[in-house]
Amino acid sequence: MNHLFNPDSVAIIGASSDPGKLGGRPIRFLLEAGYEGAIYPINKRADTVQGLKAYPSLADIPGKVDQAIIIVPAPAALAALQECIAKNIKMVQILSSGFSEENAEGLARQQALVELAAQHGVRLLGPNCLGIVSVRNRYFATFSTALEALTPQPGGISFATQSGAFGSCAYAQAIQRGLGIARIVATGNEADIDVTECIDFLASDPQTRVICAAIEGCRDGNRLRRALLKAAAANKPVILMKVGTSETGQQAVATHTGAIAGNDRIFDVVCQECGAWRAMSIEEMLDIAYVCTQLPLPTNDRASITTVSGGIGVLMADDAERFGITIAPVSPDLQRKIHEVVPFLVGVNPLDTTAQIGVIEKGFQKVLDLVIQDTDYAIHFVYLAQIPCDPGRFLPLLEDLTRFRKQYPERLIVLVGPSDERMRALLEQQDLVIFSDPGRAVRAVAALCAIKRRWQSLHPGLPNTSRPGKSKPDEDSRTLNELQAKRLLARYGLAVPAETLCTTASEAVDAADAIGYPVVAKIVSPDILHKSDFGGVQLNLQNCGQVEAAFAALMNAAAKQDGNPLIQGVLIAPMIKGGIETILGVHHDPIFGSMVMFGLGGVAVELYNDVAFASVPLTAERAEQLIHSVRASKLLTGWRGQKAVDLEQLKGALLGLSAFAEDWSDVLEGVDINPFVVMESGTACLDAVISVR
Amino acid sequence: MNHLFNPDSVAIIGASSDPGKLGGRPIRFLLEAGYEGAIYPINKRADTVQGLKAYPSLADIPGKVDQAIIIVPAPAALAALQECIAKNIKMVQILSSGFSEENAEGLARQQALVELAAQHGVRLLGPNCLGIVSVRNRYFATFSTALEALTPQPGGISFATQSGAFGSCAYAQAIQRGLGIARIVATGNEADIDVTECIDFLASDPQTRVICAAIEGCRDGNRLRRALLKAAAANKPVILMKVGTSETGQQAVATHTGAIAGNDRIFDVVCQECGAWRAMSIEEMLDIAYVCTQLPLPTNDRASITTVSGGIGVLMADDAERFGITIAPVSPDLQRKIHEVVPFLVGVNPLDTTAQIGVIEKGFQKVLDLVIQDTDYAIHFVYLAQIPCDPGRFLPLLEDLTRFRKQYPERLIVLVGPSDERMRALLEQQDLVIFSDPGRAVRAVAALCAIKRRWQSLHPGLPNTSRPGKSKPDEDSRTLNELQAKRLLARYGLAVPAETLCTTASEAVDAADAIGYPVVAKIVSPDILHKSDFGGVQLNLQNCGQVEAAFAALMNAAAKQDGNPLIQGVLIAPMIKGGIETILGVHHDPIFGSMVMFGLGGVAVELYNDVAFASVPLTAERAEQLIHSVRASKLLTGWRGQKAVDLEQLKGALLGLSAFAEDWSDVLEGVDINPFVVMESGTACLDAVISVR
Repeated sequence: MNHLFNPDSVAIIGASSDPGKLGGRPIRFLLEAGYEGAIYPINKRADTVQGLKAYPSLADIPGKVDQAIIIVPAPAALAALQECIAKNIKMVQILSSGFSEENAEGLARQQALVELAAQHGVRLLGPNCLGIVSVRNRYFATFSTALEALTPQPGGISFATQSGAFGSCAYAQAIQRGLGIARIVATGNEADIDVTECIDFLASDPQTRVICAAIEGCRDGNRLRRALLKAAAANKPVILMKVGTSETGQQAVATHTGAIAGNDRIFDVVCQECGAWRAMSIEEMLDIAYVCTQLPLPTNDRASITTVSGGIGVLMADDAERFGITIAPVSPDLQRKIHEVVPFLVGVNPLDTTAQIGVIEKGFQKVLDLVIQDTDYAIHFVYLAQIPCDPGRFLPLLEDLTRFRKQYPERLIVLVGPSDERMRALLEQQDLVIFSDPGRAVRAVAALCAIKRRWQSLHPGLPNTSRPGKSKPDEDSRTLNELQAKRLLARYGLAVPAETLCTTASEAVDAADAIGYPVVAKIVSPDILHKSDFGGVQLNLQNCGQVEAAFAALMNAAAKQDGNPLIQGVLIAPMIKGGIETILGVHHDPIFGSMVMFGLGGVAVELYNDVAFASVPLTAERAEQLIHSVRASKLLTGWRGQKAVDLEQLKGALLGLSAFAEDWSDVLEGVDINPFVVMESGTACLDAVISVR
Repeated sequence: MNHLFNPDSVAIIGASSDPGKLGGRPIRFLLEAGYEGAIYPINKRADTVQGLKAYPSLADIPGKVDQAIIIVPAPAALAALQECIAKNIKMVQILSSGFSEENAEGLARQQALVELAAQHGVRLLGPNCLGIVSVRNRYFATFSTALEALTPQPGGISFATQSGAFGSCAYAQAIQRGLGIARIVATGNEADIDVTECIDFLASDPQTRVICAAIEGCRDGNRLRRALLKAAAANKPVILMKVGTSETGQQAVATHTGAIAGNDRIFDVVCQECGAWRAMSIEEMLDIAYVCTQLPLPTNDRASITTVSGGIGVLMADDAERFGITIAPVSPDLQRKIHEVVPFLVGVNPLDTTAQIGVIEKGFQKVLDLVIQDTDYAIHFVYLAQIPCDPGRFLPLLEDLTRFRKQYPERLIVLVGPSDERMRALLEQQDLVIFSDPGRAVRAVAALCAIKRRWQSLHPGLPNTSRPGKSKPDEDSRTLNELQAKRLLARYGLAVPAETLCTTASEAVDAADAIGYPVVAKIVSPDILHKSDFGGVQLNLQNCGQVEAAFAALMNAAAKQDGNPLIQGVLIAPMIKGGIETILGVHHDPIFGSMVMFGLGGVAVELYNDVAFASVPLTAERAEQLIHSVRASKLLTGWRGQKAVDLEQLKGALLGLSAFAEDWSDVLEGVDINPFVVMESGTACLDAVISVR
């Protein structure tokens, strides 16, 4: 991949003398940027192109070529690739369009390119992509018009996006804001290199401090997980956007768990588990990246707010509460010290020096100094009001801020006040940041706190290759009924009540007598997933007469269902009373694999969507997190004087379900265990549906 | 109030020759801005101040003075005000600090000013305020340092804030963004003129198109309501921020309803009812104001997205879904017409012309023209990618956009692309707007859609002066027990089951016999608000023996409660089964008066805070809105095959509760009716607590 960003030489196949044309722009940008490698324009009809010696073909170039850029019409691309192979070029960008994005013919063309490249160990970027920008080595191999008006400054932010237009929009904003950029790559049709591989590369790229990426489709969830985990291990925040979150056009899914998961929610979970941050707007992405390039990640989520304005201080405290940053009062001892210096200071955090602070020589700095010295808050917000507009006041303050920054390198000093590009550039030299909008400052820092928390409890969710001898599913999985589903889950440690499948009324009565009244009777059929919908469950049967009647009613009702379902009998089970109904589930996401779901029964799931997902395999720690990340879990731990329920067994059940999902990963579509009753002591799986692909 | 913003002449008491000092800055700003009225510096020790003739006292000024600005030390302010009165000046700004914001002495000083001013019909702005800026008449009567570096352009945005520092932060950002400003006022301590009165004035100010306001405290909720309604009637959007939303330090409240309301939630409800928008950040406020000054409010919430980039189009569609704007496909007929012009266009909305669009002469404009002509979408988002960076492509497009804007003045054409101040100024001349960030464009327009919807169903929530002869509370309200509370509510039409207060076990048995079993027994005491907490309610008593036992148990348990509560007996009532438990409540907000609350019983309220509030008096329409604005109301209208419940009676009960709250507004603190059972036919108020102030 290093050949992609740092080639010593590049050939442009389809080079144009017109610097405004697609085939001319990369040469112009490379020349203007001052790329120091060799540039070889390939053009049969010209001796020179934009002042460079041109070659009729790759073969005519003396010596080695590191990378080729193909900008010829799509039908000619294959021949161009063959030329590259003949010249032993291992990295080829295809900027041309007219491939899989267009039609079947284009797709065939693209497949031919991929096959040929793979045979010869050649890596492809594109086709239909916008190319590469690598700022420090001035390799501007793109035709993006964003570069005509805007020149990126070198810095630590790298962009990897699929859509070139999305990338352009993001980095045009970044350049306008004066943010420093390391690398930009747009992967286009991703015939070979995709955004995931770029994230993986950037995670070990010494020039990159923070990775901004946008994903439309993702081919391999586990590769993405690995790339995100690698970035986290390298202390590089990844800020991801997912384009296309609307729920329309989502495929029908058989399980309830799958329907709740939708096509977007799992992406959130994976970001969280693998230590990435999902941004909802380009602006949010850039705000976070801006802070990342200048400041360390916060070591805790406590912040001070020092301000010359009560109003803005309170506003920032409100925002901090909203975004999850703690604004705790400073200690009485520190309060005393501060009041010795600034007697009229208001508040204990926010600390409002008031506009009067001007009367005390370096009063504002002194307060800041005390707060930074005497607290272990990782974050110090500093609201400057109009001071930045007044160089006479601002420059001496800046001197002290710079000193604080150097003295306490692990702290995040975040300034808020009127600021422009020039001001930000000035502060950047001192590794300081400034935001014009107080809310955006707080939101960006809150994201860093979250990233840091996530890094401290990463949950890879990758296949567990060390797991000894998996038990293969031994039943014909396409015909699992409730009884079989429960028996299977019981093998993974889930508590299933004793129950009997009965095919006659008298068998049912015998079973009920053996179990003891009251009992439950349920129809058993692999073809009926939602038996409650037609009265296929009868609860609280008190005696043999009721059991007989229920048997007849159930068989009768089931026979009337559409689709001629296979009726296997009636299940007689003990009637479990009390406990709290929860829902356990598994959803097999086509990209990210099996996910375990947990929620509470009733309106918690139906109305409030109060469920949580976690990647398989679960760990005990993650299972505990999963339980506590639903709001309704308060009901489990002793709500309003009730006794707490058996969380240990619940956790065990989730771990068992995760192990089941691992073993069955090849065929499983989903599992709904609803209800799964959790009692003061013990649990019971009262119904289960297992759905296979 | 017009004298505040448009004085013909102004005297500055405490004028300084030093243009950098507090007393010098207003004069400098007025001179620099070119204020055309007379400026009279008052200074005993100088003949001229900053080149202007100075006067030893107001009395020395020949002729009339419209407004005075007092910038003398606080102890000298009263004498200065006396001078103003002697000179018959009716509008006085007091910029000096050292009043109620400081200590009791300052508060006394302030009260003396207020009394004196009131006696002589003089209006006061401040004290401790930042003053006034009125851009068109160049009246820059402030000492805000924000104006040293930044000069506001005339335009339609007005700012009214309590905190000068908050105001400075907001308008410094506005000026930096090149937004046009009409008026700025900071009200400081609000000894007389407050933000509410400024909103009221700005609502009828012809220079103001949109009002940005920030409120910390509000003295009179109904005045604020009237001001917001006046602005709505004048078609002027009001964008409000509330500073200080954190829940800490909130006063203890007696009712559950009051606890849920908190100190912030009611503000949201009032904004919504009175057609204002509550912004959560200064940036959001300015984004909305920016669109308001250039474009009309949308006539519906449907939008088209025309884009040269698929990725950004999808991102904007995602945002639209998130913020509540409808992105419906264009008609098949229009699709056909568009494809005739641009065969390679992708999608039906977003409409992605792709970057190829350059090959068709004016192709992008033609698509836009068709979409604007052939749809009734009120909103047209246009994503331009890098086109704005290329004048050769952008200027011809701008010509057409300008034509569309004139031809369809009721449509919102919102551009998205790289933009700076210069670009925005260029577009402003054509009444067009541009955002760099796609998400912010969508969010701002969505706020306008919400404002428009709110204007279409305003709910004043003001005291109903036309209501005939209110029944005064006829009981000693401090000693209302459950029975009395229910009887009172029954008079307002709330259904209360027949029930009897019994003081002996045999009375209880007689009552139960008369009602019919099963019955409920509850302790009755005005001193016990939460009787369930100690078992003060016994349900489902099946016979006289159980009633006798329950009576004894209840009396016994109640006697053991702390505080020696007055025990009035035991209430025997029929046991109501079935139906859906709801919660009805009233909360008397100290600022906004009585609010009715509605929610569903159980976890909906406790865990998910799924309740809604509305101002008293309710209308039938608002009562219906209230019911449907809680998520759990789905359970009332036929959830999962269950029958719908009696919404008409529920609505009636809410209206009755509202009428009760009106009559009792002088003494009521709150009401909790929990549960209020709604059945398929009929309702029943099963418990009620009325709490008085």
